[in-house]
Amino acid sequence: MATLGLIDYPDASPEVRAVYDDIMATRKTDWINNFWKALAHHPATLRRTWASVKEIMAPGALDAVTKEMIYLAVSATNQCGYCIASHTAAARKAGMSDAMLAELMAVVGMANETNRLASGYQVEIDERFLTKRP
Amino acid sequence: MATLGLIDYPDASPEVRAVYDDIMATRKTDWINNFWKALAHHPATLRRTWASVKEIMAPGALDAVTKEMIYLAVSATNQCGYCIASHTAAARKAGMSDAMLAELMAVVGMANETNRLASGYQVEIDERFLTKRP
Amino acid sequence: MATLGLIDYPDASPEVRAVYDDIMATRKTDWINNFWKALAHHPATLRRTWASVKEIMAPGALDAVTKEMIYLAVSATNQCGYCIASHTAAARKAGMSDAMLAELMAVVGMANETNRLASGYQVEIDERFLTKRP
Amino acid sequence: MATLGLIDYPDASPEVRAVYDDIMATRKTDWINNFWKALAHHPATLRRTWASVKEIMAPGALDAVTKEMIYLAVSATNQCGYCIASHTAAARKAGMSDAMLAELMAVVGMANETNRLASGYQVEIDERFLTKRP
Amino acid sequence: MATLGLIDYPDASPEVRAVYDDIMATRKTDWINNFWKALAHHPATLRRTWASVKEIMAPGALDAVTKEMIYLAVSATNQCGYCIASHTAAARKAGMSDAMLAELMAVVGMANETNRLASGYQVEIDERFLTKRP
Amino acid sequence: MATLGLIDYPDASPEVRAVYDDIMATRKTDWINNFWKALAHHPATLRRTWASVKEIMAPGALDAVTKEMIYLAVSATNQCGYCIASHTAAARKAGMSDAMLAELMAVVGMANETNRLASGYQVEIDERFLTKRP
Repeated sequence: MATLGLIDYPDASPEVRAVYDDIMATRKTDWINNFWKALAHHPATLRRTWASVKEIMAPGALDAVTKEMIYLAVSATNQCGYCIASHTAAARKAGMSDAMLAELMAVVGMANETNRLASGYQVEIDERFLTKRP
Repeated sequence: MATLGLIDYPDASPEVRAVYDDIMATRKTDWINNFWKALAHHPATLRRTWASVKEIMAPGALDAVTKEMIYLAVSATNQCGYCIASHTAAARKAGMSDAMLAELMAVVGMANETNRLASGYQVEIDERFLTKRP
Repeated sequence: MATLGLIDYPDASPEVRAVYDDIMATRKTDWINNFWKALAHHPATLRRTWASVKEIMAPGALDAVTKEMIYLAVSATNQCGYCIASHTAAARKAGMSDAMLAELMAVVGMANETNRLASGYQVEIDERFLTKRP
Repeated sequence: MATLGLIDYPDASPEVRAVYDDIMATRKTDWINNFWKALAHHPATLRRTWASVKEIMAPGALDAVTKEMIYLAVSATNQCGYCIASHTAAARKAGMSDAMLAELMAVVGMANETNRLASGYQVEIDERFLTKRP
Repeated sequence: MATLGLIDYPDASPEVRAVYDDIMATRKTDWINNFWKALAHHPATLRRTWASVKEIMAPGALDAVTKEMIYLAVSATNQCGYCIASHTAAARKAGMSDAMLAELMAVVGMANETNRLASGYQVEIDERFLTKRP
Repeated sequence: MATLGLIDYPDASPEVRAVYDDIMATRKTDWINNFWKALAHHPATLRRTWASVKEIMAPGALDAVTKEMIYLAVSATNQCGYCIASHTAAARKAGMSDAMLAELMAVVGMANETNRLASGYQVEIDERFLTKRP
């Protein structure tokens, strides 16, 4: 029921197909998930969002599975159902085991708890944490 | 200005000191940050929270720096000022470089963006993402 | 499955019917959506919430479609499924085109991204933004 | 640095003073906190917001201290600095002890943790929780 | 469709069964809800989470129904579908009436509104709210 | 105290200066606010973020002031202090009056309230809102 519907490959314009092709080539897969098919109604958003995701998620100082786990940690914190489902799959594909998933969720849960304790108790930031680095 | 004030080591009860001692020993440091000094007004919360953090943050299927980066990713998503400051410091201590920090923040930012695009466009979860594993 | 169930017009008390009548008259429609039917179990909440919505959403310094788009932007940020569905419909009725929807979502996504970059990097507010106006 | 500045009693219009007077009378106090002074720039918002708060926070099926604690729980979850400070004060005035504050924060922290575990693990709602009541 | 599936009692290890038994004994019930069955894939998380919930939710300075209502207030603020469903049921079992539920939701709604007004208007914290207690 | 410090124009690399120049030219201003100076430590993030903001915020189906108000609505909902301050300034520059600001905040507040009422009462989406468009 995506707001504007989903655009499948056969129905896509050449501009949209070019993005779909790059997504499949980059991810070494033969299908496009609904997120991109929904964005395809606004090709500028599709193109820009994919270009950013592609650049950001490429291995660099952090490897692919770490990046996917951070993505999943954010999605679980925001409680985005679609994103949790898709990035759990992506993280698994990148190498996340069940044990890694469980430890990830434990950290996410704990961080969400202590974030509220720190704010709720109005804890001031320690001087040491404020020091600007040279 | 923590709601109930901060309890320093010399003013702490033996029960609180025991937790402070374990924090310093575990973290190989000689000071206690304000978060714990604020919780110390309710020793049961101090004890339980530290025990959970200690267990969850110990290296396991995920190493220490990855866990600290996930903690920071959650804190940045929730925009908890105290937590961002303290866990940026903790992640650095565990080995996060400036480049790793920058890539972490890029992923956090992107995930927060696409979380809203997925929800805002009412994208339904792909059948493939729903398959229960055997 | 609304917690307290939904109250349809024929089953409503005169107090609730009066609110339903005003909703339909104000919106120039002949039906009541589930949100109000759920609130109807607590007439004081129904009456107060509708009175506030009616006053706030009336055209003033901002026109109706702009107000509905802001409502939708908030709902997408909070990822409230019901609210996204109902306010997408309301914004369309008020004149939001597909192109406007797509640009709205692009802004919502970007704002959610830079909100976390600003907080995550602990950026201090510029002096110029703090100046109190005379 | 409130965006539009703060309006003190001597500078307020009769319409705004009437609200200020009702706030002070209802709360049995002789001052107005900054929140209302900021809203005073838009008298319709000031009037409507105060009328809603006054009605909602009056003792009913829930007593005053319980309502203030719920307000504080929401504010801590949202990490609203102003609101945590003002509603901690309000809850204390209504009778919240240090022990009650500590238990409140413990529940808030835990709920924020398990909210993410439930969402992160994609737990489906139990049939028993879905049953509509007769 | 819980990410790792659900573990029912007959399929559970002795370690997991021990936690299940304690949950049922503590809650005076004969079934386990899906949340715990999902966590059971990582026994350390199951054990620690249950131990924390059991300790935090036990009546103390706050009674059981107040604690459950605070839990529900947080879950409604975070819009966690599973948690709203399960804690509405838990709060009812602890004594929350329909009228209490309605007043709770009214406070939750109002607090979420004024949290944004306070932040959106950039209201500075009143001096009186900052005073550290002796 | 930005995590990695702030990079002023004279200290910036040619790559960073090129972005700064484009920001100033696009915005018809002669200064750079702290947000960009913080991102400048990671030129790829600076470049990509600015390119996206520039593209998204350019007038299209929505005009500049509407886009800035939506940005502000998201920032107020997320309670991002830096973003509220900077986008209040940007929206004013684009033409937002005090009356428009006040109506914007009223909508933001109300939307945050009803989002929680809809979720908290577990309201199911109306059939009419689900209909896929042809």
